[in-house]
Amino acid sequence: MQFFNKTAPIGIFDSGIGGLTVAKRIISMLPNENIIYFGDTARVPYGSKSNTTVIEYAIQDAQFLINKNVKLIIVACNTASSVALESLQKKYDIPVIGMIEPGAKLALDKTKNRRIGVIGTYSTINNKAYSEQLKELDSEITVFEKACPLFVPIAEEGWLDHEATKLVAKEYLQDFIDADVDTLILGCTHYPLLSEIIQNIMGEKVTLIDSGFAASHQVEDYLKGRGVRNDSVQIGTHHFYVSDLPDKFKSMAERFLGSEVKHIEKIDVETLITH
Amino acid sequence: MQFFNKTAPIGIFDSGIGGLTVAKRIISMLPNENIIYFGDTARVPYGSKSNTTVIEYAIQDAQFLINKNVKLIIVACNTASSVALESLQKKYDIPVIGMIEPGAKLALDKTKNRRIGVIGTYSTINNKAYSEQLKELDSEITVFEKACPLFVPIAEEGWLDHEATKLVAKEYLQDFIDADVDTLILGCTHYPLLSEIIQNIMGEKVTLIDSGFAASHQVEDYLKGRGVRNDSVQIGTHHFYVSDLPDKFKSMAERFLGSEVKHIEKIDVETLITH
Repeated sequence: MQFFNKTAPIGIFDSGIGGLTVAKRIISMLPNENIIYFGDTARVPYGSKSNTTVIEYAIQDAQFLINKNVKLIIVACNTASSVALESLQKKYDIPVIGMIEPGAKLALDKTKNRRIGVIGTYSTINNKAYSEQLKELDSEITVFEKACPLFVPIAEEGWLDHEATKLVAKEYLQDFIDADVDTLILGCTHYPLLSEIIQNIMGEKVTLIDSGFAASHQVEDYLKGRGVRNDSVQIGTHHFYVSDLPDKFKSMAERFLGSEVKHIEKIDVETLITH
Repeated sequence: MQFFNKTAPIGIFDSGIGGLTVAKRIISMLPNENIIYFGDTARVPYGSKSNTTVIEYAIQDAQFLINKNVKLIIVACNTASSVALESLQKKYDIPVIGMIEPGAKLALDKTKNRRIGVIGTYSTINNKAYSEQLKELDSEITVFEKACPLFVPIAEEGWLDHEATKLVAKEYLQDFIDADVDTLILGCTHYPLLSEIIQNIMGEKVTLIDSGFAASHQVEDYLKGRGVRNDSVQIGTHHFYVSDLPDKFKSMAERFLGSEVKHIEKIDVETLITH
């Protein structure tokens, strides 16, 4: 295990912009940490690609962050977390934290009736990423899963309080109400943007689990435990890199983060492949 | 120009499944033609990729069809049509027919008040594919354009008559009603699936232009003109190839085509690249 400067940045990558909800959690929880975010916007989405391809891309994304001397990597993409986390953890000495395990653990901590729902992209649901993790941690748990493919484009359109969004959410979520889950995992990093509508439909008694929030706590624990928290009194710097369409990313990022994005740079996919 | 057997198949390619609405038009208009359809489901969507990449992929897709000895190629994808058509036409001896020109010509033929609307993906709208083509054909025309990114995932979900779909369509289309267009180009091959809802919102006086329908007429005219219509009295064979997830494609294809898909085969992306 390498020893890192406390001021080394935290690396975050995602197939695109969804991981920004995780970055937002990290920024709010650990404001003095420096952050490097990479969004692979040229190759988004990962969810429709084969596992082999997703692992290959995830390694390239992680290597880009490694080359920036990050002290820890967050895989802020549920697809990449479910498919590539183990490969990344084997390959690199620094800690690599995904979305699935922290989200599953927090859900198990919160549920009282042992009935947990999971919503995500087709890929995450078909991979049974959360259900297998949940059952590995607690074989008695009952899990209900459903892909909600419209939630990502709706979040990207910014229709966070639109009547159409409410109807879409009702259509997707009724099964979970019928199944009497008391905990619902938002198994896609875009979904926290829709948490208000989802909460309204599910009712106040249902706990929503934001995996990015859970992962951020794991990051904080790790950094404290190893004594590598940035102890600067200044607000950290936040650098964003994308593989395509930086202007589109910037406008969406500002909506996702709720603040101005100053440092954004486009890098070529070729650079990822050859480094 | 090569001379082809009349019974040689018509080749159709798309980045995924949207092009099936074009295939459906061809099947219905030219039932005795043999068809080979390729959907590049491993690399979908093309709309978020750079022009260089889309051209590269389009050439690989077309080459796959050429290797199957097709007599004509239809680029059943608005993104690939707007970006790669010229490269394909330069490279190959057989005719290559895209979506943009036939759709634009039909729209100009139908409009009376010379106010035309265009809806499509971000890529097609940002490329100004239709507006430039329309203005090239008629510099006096007034064009209104808007990206409707939710229409593709809604069509893929099969929510063709859902209340949520109506609200989404109202949100997107109000600007075109306000702009008093009398003709609306469905500039994405998924959109004809939503034509009923779109027509209801726009009103009966507005003509919807299905570019795939327009392109099919161009294909028929070409085949007749060259004397290469298949004159078999039998129904043609329809073979479908995809680069990933054939089962998902099959179920969606049957919804798009409204009939059973018998011959479907997965081919590796590597095969596309090296042939």
